[in-house]
Amino acid sequence: MAINGSLYHTEAVNEKGLSGVSFIRGNEGLALGVSSSLVKGSGTNPEQLVGLAISTCFNATIEIIEKQHNLPHTSVVHTGVDQLKDDTGYKFVVRVQVLMTGVAHDQAQALVDEAKNYCPVAKMIKQNANVSFEVVDEFAF
Amino acid sequence: MAINGSLYHTEAVNEKGLSGVSFIRGNEGLALGVSSSLVKGSGTNPEQLVGLAISTCFNATIEIIEKQHNLPHTSVVHTGVDQLKDDTGYKFVVRVQVLMTGVAHDQAQALVDEAKNYCPVAKMIKQNANVSFEVVDEFAF
Repeated sequence: MAINGSLYHTEAVNEKGLSGVSFIRGNEGLALGVSSSLVKGSGTNPEQLVGLAISTCFNATIEIIEKQHNLPHTSVVHTGVDQLKDDTGYKFVVRVQVLMTGVAHDQAQALVDEAKNYCPVAKMIKQNANVSFEVVDEFAF
Repeated sequence: MAINGSLYHTEAVNEKGLSGVSFIRGNEGLALGVSSSLVKGSGTNPEQLVGLAISTCFNATIEIIEKQHNLPHTSVVHTGVDQLKDDTGYKFVVRVQVLMTGVAHDQAQALVDEAKNYCPVAKMIKQNANVSFEVVDEFAF
């Protein structure tokens, strides 16, 4: 059940753990084979899903911000996700790179800063030391 | 390019924004149609991708923790994601529910607490006020 004020509600399920299928409840029909990135297996994994969530949400947000500034939508977002050993367990290092054409670097940076305060996914992760957002002239991880 | 010490590296791309395709670079072959959850569109969206990332990574982690405690793997994880208007832009409310059979509630809670300090996705999001982890006897959002 959605919480009060919810504009959209979804539920994602994993029943088996490291390998198997993760899926969305209900009629949405999304089910993805998953496996650990640390073994040779087929299917997607948390690193890819995190990267896809960020690239999608952040670029969709920049599109809104561009429109608010009467700019054409030119941004492209690449998110690099690396898994590393941590003191306990593992950690992700997330690098979000934004390329915008037709705007000066300073303006692009201002738009990205606005997007970081608007995008729900950016809000959840931006306070982490291992998460960075960068305006780039070319993508390079 | 992966960073030093990386055990696994992936790059996720969104080129169009609100609607289109998000994909993983390289030969992994994962490309997902996406759309905003706030319009009637086909494809997945950031809420679903965030939920799938969390459910997959957290249940995979609990599986590791169960094994370290010589317990059978019984956990199932459901993650509810709601989108709400925020003061600026939008916010997600994320509720992670864990159901474990065959262990007492207190022990299940201790295992979940361990997993929160081990799982790379949990580490990125657990400090948010809008993110909760809960041991449940039945799933209810």
